[in-house]
Amino acid sequence: MSRCPYFEKKHLLFKRKSSIEESQETSQGGVDQDSKGRIIYGDYLQLDKITTAQVLQSELQGNKIHDEHLFIVTHQAYELWFKQILFEIDSVREIFISGHVRDERNMLKVNTRIHRIVMIFRLLVDQFAVLETMTALDFFDFRKYLIRASGFESLQFRLLENKIGVQDNLRVPYNRRHYKDYIKEDDTETLLQTEQEPTLLKLVEEWLERTPGLEVDGFNFWERLEINIFDGLNVEEKKIEKMRDSEEKANLMVELVKQREHFMSLFDEKRHDHLVSKGERRMSYKALQGALMIYFYREEPRFQVPFQLLTSLMDMDTLMTKWRYNHVCMVHRMIGSKAGTGGSSGYHYLRSTVSDRYKVFVDLFNLATFLVPRHWVPKLNPSVHTFMYMAECCDSSYCSSEDSD
Amino acid sequence: MSRCPYFEKKHLLFKRKSSIEESQETSQGGVDQDSKGRIIYGDYLQLDKITTAQVLQSELQGNKIHDEHLFIVTHQAYELWFKQILFEIDSVREIFISGHVRDERNMLKVNTRIHRIVMIFRLLVDQFAVLETMTALDFFDFRKYLIRASGFESLQFRLLENKIGVQDNLRVPYNRRHYKDYIKEDDTETLLQTEQEPTLLKLVEEWLERTPGLEVDGFNFWERLEINIFDGLNVEEKKIEKMRDSEEKANLMVELVKQREHFMSLFDEKRHDHLVSKGERRMSYKALQGALMIYFYREEPRFQVPFQLLTSLMDMDTLMTKWRYNHVCMVHRMIGSKAGTGGSSGYHYLRSTVSDRYKVFVDLFNLATFLVPRHWVPKLNPSVHTFMYMAECCDSSYCSSEDSD
Amino acid sequence: MSRCPYFEKKHLLFKRKSSIEESQETSQGGVDQDSKGRIIYGDYLQLDKITTAQVLQSELQGNKIHDEHLFIVTHQAYELWFKQILFEIDSVREIFISGHVRDERNMLKVNTRIHRIVMIFRLLVDQFAVLETMTALDFFDFRKYLIRASGFESLQFRLLENKIGVQDNLRVPYNRRHYKDYIKEDDTETLLQTEQEPTLLKLVEEWLERTPGLEVDGFNFWERLEINIFDGLNVEEKKIEKMRDSEEKANLMVELVKQREHFMSLFDEKRHDHLVSKGERRMSYKALQGALMIYFYREEPRFQVPFQLLTSLMDMDTLMTKWRYNHVCMVHRMIGSKAGTGGSSGYHYLRSTVSDRYKVFVDLFNLATFLVPRHWVPKLNPSVHTFMYMAECCDSSYCSSEDSD
Amino acid sequence: MSRCPYFEKKHLLFKRKSSIEESQETSQGGVDQDSKGRIIYGDYLQLDKITTAQVLQSELQGNKIHDEHLFIVTHQAYELWFKQILFEIDSVREIFISGHVRDERNMLKVNTRIHRIVMIFRLLVDQFAVLETMTALDFFDFRKYLIRASGFESLQFRLLENKIGVQDNLRVPYNRRHYKDYIKEDDTETLLQTEQEPTLLKLVEEWLERTPGLEVDGFNFWERLEINIFDGLNVEEKKIEKMRDSEEKANLMVELVKQREHFMSLFDEKRHDHLVSKGERRMSYKALQGALMIYFYREEPRFQVPFQLLTSLMDMDTLMTKWRYNHVCMVHRMIGSKAGTGGSSGYHYLRSTVSDRYKVFVDLFNLATFLVPRHWVPKLNPSVHTFMYMAECCDSSYCSSEDSD
Repeated sequence: MSRCPYFEKKHLLFKRKSSIEESQETSQGGVDQDSKGRIIYGDYLQLDKITTAQVLQSELQGNKIHDEHLFIVTHQAYELWFKQILFEIDSVREIFISGHVRDERNMLKVNTRIHRIVMIFRLLVDQFAVLETMTALDFFDFRKYLIRASGFESLQFRLLENKIGVQDNLRVPYNRRHYKDYIKEDDTETLLQTEQEPTLLKLVEEWLERTPGLEVDGFNFWERLEINIFDGLNVEEKKIEKMRDSEEKANLMVELVKQREHFMSLFDEKRHDHLVSKGERRMSYKALQGALMIYFYREEPRFQVPFQLLTSLMDMDTLMTKWRYNHVCMVHRMIGSKAGTGGSSGYHYLRSTVSDRYKVFVDLFNLATFLVPRHWVPKLNPSVHTFMYMAECCDSSYCSSEDSD
Repeated sequence: MSRCPYFEKKHLLFKRKSSIEESQETSQGGVDQDSKGRIIYGDYLQLDKITTAQVLQSELQGNKIHDEHLFIVTHQAYELWFKQILFEIDSVREIFISGHVRDERNMLKVNTRIHRIVMIFRLLVDQFAVLETMTALDFFDFRKYLIRASGFESLQFRLLENKIGVQDNLRVPYNRRHYKDYIKEDDTETLLQTEQEPTLLKLVEEWLERTPGLEVDGFNFWERLEINIFDGLNVEEKKIEKMRDSEEKANLMVELVKQREHFMSLFDEKRHDHLVSKGERRMSYKALQGALMIYFYREEPRFQVPFQLLTSLMDMDTLMTKWRYNHVCMVHRMIGSKAGTGGSSGYHYLRSTVSDRYKVFVDLFNLATFLVPRHWVPKLNPSVHTFMYMAECCDSSYCSSEDSD
Repeated sequence: MSRCPYFEKKHLLFKRKSSIEESQETSQGGVDQDSKGRIIYGDYLQLDKITTAQVLQSELQGNKIHDEHLFIVTHQAYELWFKQILFEIDSVREIFISGHVRDERNMLKVNTRIHRIVMIFRLLVDQFAVLETMTALDFFDFRKYLIRASGFESLQFRLLENKIGVQDNLRVPYNRRHYKDYIKEDDTETLLQTEQEPTLLKLVEEWLERTPGLEVDGFNFWERLEINIFDGLNVEEKKIEKMRDSEEKANLMVELVKQREHFMSLFDEKRHDHLVSKGERRMSYKALQGALMIYFYREEPRFQVPFQLLTSLMDMDTLMTKWRYNHVCMVHRMIGSKAGTGGSSGYHYLRSTVSDRYKVFVDLFNLATFLVPRHWVPKLNPSVHTFMYMAECCDSSYCSSEDSD
Repeated sequence: MSRCPYFEKKHLLFKRKSSIEESQETSQGGVDQDSKGRIIYGDYLQLDKITTAQVLQSELQGNKIHDEHLFIVTHQAYELWFKQILFEIDSVREIFISGHVRDERNMLKVNTRIHRIVMIFRLLVDQFAVLETMTALDFFDFRKYLIRASGFESLQFRLLENKIGVQDNLRVPYNRRHYKDYIKEDDTETLLQTEQEPTLLKLVEEWLERTPGLEVDGFNFWERLEINIFDGLNVEEKKIEKMRDSEEKANLMVELVKQREHFMSLFDEKRHDHLVSKGERRMSYKALQGALMIYFYREEPRFQVPFQLLTSLMDMDTLMTKWRYNHVCMVHRMIGSKAGTGGSSGYHYLRSTVSDRYKVFVDLFNLATFLVPRHWVPKLNPSVHTFMYMAECCDSSYCSSEDSD
């Protein structure tokens, strides 16, 4: 957006409100102003840091290789955007942690920021096309100077994974060593700390568990759903039984039995816990119920933005794996894959991370196997329905009750 | 590309070639190495600079606005990529200036680097989608703190324009002031200097003037083309004359006259110079001839890569105007357009720069109005044809100088 | 998505519900099924039509030009997507026309479909990159066979413009003739009809006019806003008056006067009507009020999705102009621009359509000039606030009519 | 590109050349012309077919589901582009088969067309973003009507795979059945035929085998390379031997041994044949030599465009796997992944095709493991060097010898 004369005179006015107390802020945190009190663009962006941070190892070693500059800038651009993603993730987690998400007014913010992460990842996926203007041969000319300095060591990417909720026990080890071993010692603590903090996954899970309508002594969505599904299957069964004997009838009956088993598994909490223990599910049983409820009633005013949020979380997850996959493709081109060296290569390692093990919100995808016809979805009764038209509110100065969980 | 374990052990080997002379390079230009002599990823990329350069003015003023972080990071990403583009432009100009382009081996490099700039601009155009996740309302909350720090002040973008060849006299003045007045005083000299250096446009022009085949005492492409075109038009005229009188015949004759006039203008050097003086053409008369020759004989081995280069230059030009236009769209959304304030607003200024005045290689586009049927293109005679199968070479150790000019 | 084995056995079950009444649907509207009652993929998609519709004029004329195939396919892909966009626009208009939008449950649909149009336009903008793999020279080889068959004649694009709300009187005439004259006679009626139907712009306008909170005998947003703004400006003025005399003080006072004038214009209905008559504004005075209200209270649960809708409408508008601009760039490359031929060329015509005259929702952009500090925005009182937490509902079986207008 | 008044009057002129023989072409192959002989845009594009081919199964069954329209249009757009890709692939294969590729003038065409396929695939990858505006729930509402009509049945995609060179024996079977079993019986023959025709892979292989410089009685690249590499490794070994004993020295020696083994494998034709038999390599031993030669001498005028071609082939391959992966991601979202159902699901099948088994030009990637320092690359002697500055030529009227293979 360089070249943008956004800041036209009229805003001086609003600025000057604060100019009253100007004395104590003169320094502006070290950002220089010119004689008229204007902030200088280049100083504001700290371009002296940004545009001087490209030091080519090949040049230091007396053999400047042109393409190393692109290699550095591309990685720096990645890290710059990772910084932004971390900033957004932290702010979203903060809203959840502080309980502010209970005030539905904050849902727009949460949703917007996750969507912003989605847009950034979309850019980052495309960014590989720039680096791919460098050929394997160009890369070969300077990679010897890097001596194993590896993107695997990116602290910010690890923080990002941890904060979103990549589980330590599901990570693929690289060369049989833990990912922490590739991070600079000074940063290990920062990294370990994020394993202690509530992840985005955890926070979303807790929020889903509070989905209004799940209350056993209220609408009791889960029980109603179970009843409807099995009633529905029974009706199907009766229809099939009335058919003339035929191969088709037999097939349909086999299908019906499978369906019934499949849905029984949905209501089997023990099986759920087993899948969680194996890492095939990540969220609590109750959170899944909340998610399915939001899916089915997504058009209710109260659930429209929550539904968008679930969609955005899947977008984010998907784009992270696409980023991983595009990365793999680029690495394949740059360093090839040695046939027969037994999977310990960088290429093969990276390939193994393009896996559902790294999909944090995998449950949201897999709920698609439990969809049912609209007429099986429990009807909202008038009082619940009205309730669905209201959002939660935590602003005690305005609202009396903030109930519902 | 973080997370990339590119640098596998085997490369240690090549590294160690230089490790023989290791003593004098121990420091590696300030980049820390760990105890095993490895370069640390974060140090290599100077992430301590890159990821700490985000200081929010709103926060300094005691009213932290979340979206200012995105605003800063986006601009920094733009500046980072501008740095890379400048690096590529400079290297290409260097190849031209040093005369290395006469060795056709360097054409691949030139072409690849211009193509890389194209890919970067493609990314930068898409990058607006990220900033557009910020609404006008979010922006309003902090723009007062920026006090006119404006993208208009981006030194690098101005350098870029100058080095490619945006002409000073074709620039649209902003608020009736010269663009230089918006650049920090310290940087004015750097900027003025680029107005003295040969621009990419100038260098490409000189290269085009040397296109083999233009020699008046050789193939003499220009004269042959002129003859063929007017012969062709005469044949057309005769065909039309033979038609029965009809409205269609009359129309065709009118068209023919216009065509003849149009092509006469192509061979009118004075008219060319007049258009140049008005800024409607930018290249010399001879360079245009070279470009058209490359167009017509693009499939000759010698001209394949030159033709790609001309195409890439148009791509670059187009993407720069698309970048400008996307910028305009974003500004419209962020600050609106005051109806009736007479065109001096930022929005209206930026809009005026989305113009062919800022298209540096506009001549390459406009040559499309002078295309002719394939059978009008002068045939290559055997000796020229063979010549076209050979590239230039400056490597005196191998070749006996066959320089074509 | 070809190659997708979506339709796994279990769905047979749900299918068979309808198989009970199978007899009367055997034919499936002409879509063939194989012996097992499966629908054939190629028949379902009518690929016999889609993939056989590429007839090259150059080939018919005995001079097959390879790139004409790309030209045809690209245009067909555009038309295919235009069909989809029209389908979405029509469905959204239908929701508005039928009054269903008063049931807030339908807002998710409206929003999703406008967003889908945005995503399609994003693709269509990128699609030019494919056509640009054809050079001007390749195009020249076959354009003579097209004899003025021109994209200008695309009925669907004109329908699209009309249905969204491009105003007839704001259109740029091409060669001094009305756009209708370029449409096949058979289609003129279809086209004229869309000028009679309510446009998306009109329907959004009516919806905005109903924004809850505008009621003069209720919250009366507009009057409160006016009071707050001028109170705010008065406070500013007093602050400035207390400053020591200085150039800065004088400047600030000048600014303040301009600000006051600017905001006075906001509350001047006559001026609004004047701007409407000139085409600089498109929506009614009341609709603007509604839009500004949604802007300021966008975080209120009730306004979150409406705010997203306004944003999506701007996205759509912006992408349509980007599409136009990308089109212009492509045409410039394909046919050039004749210097000095006085603006009647295709290139110059298309350029003139990249204009705010063709931005249908331009008012939503320009409201950005009327933003105010958050503390100037009228506070919601408890009852309004509660109301804002509730959505509208038209489902009489559940809700006791709470329509807000 | 609708709305494009490309076809301006002046081209009437060129048109009229053919108008002389107008009588016999009046019908223009069924494309209607208006009274003035103009071709109608909509007829030219056969829009009556294209825009009427959207028949919703859900609507036929009396339960119209809005999103089925998007589903159909998206798939049709894919098929339209597949048609174009097939057209380009066929034309490229034709150039190779006819031997025209020996005239280097055709390399530009080959390169441009493969690049065009790359650009189309880039669009197709992005196109998933449009379909993803449909949620799993929207899809569920109509997928029951499709009764297993599956993208898996796309004839064109299978043709595409076969023509490029996906090997039958490397395909992953779906539900233990061969891919042919999913194609409509009428089309089986068409499909089987493509297994008989020379694939793009095969044709590129033959072309690489003819790379000038490989001649054993000429430059003999392969032998020279082998000598240089092992000489180079010996020099390394001597350097290491001179080092003081240390852990580092030991490590370097271990590395050296591995390196030597790795490069010995490069020159081991039997091992190559073994890898081919396992499907880990696809090209002949000689073709690999040609590819590596082009890699190393890519800057020689003669090899610049061939090098670009190899790069474009890798781009195409990569984008096809990205397309597959994006498809997988979309399917995961639409139908989920049943935990524990043992890999026969559509999702798991598709995932298994995102594999190097489906990367046709995998050898070009893996050659990156055999790069060597520039000074190990055999020097061109003057005569070879000069030769490298000349392209091949088949045009007997101009050139005498077309030798070189």
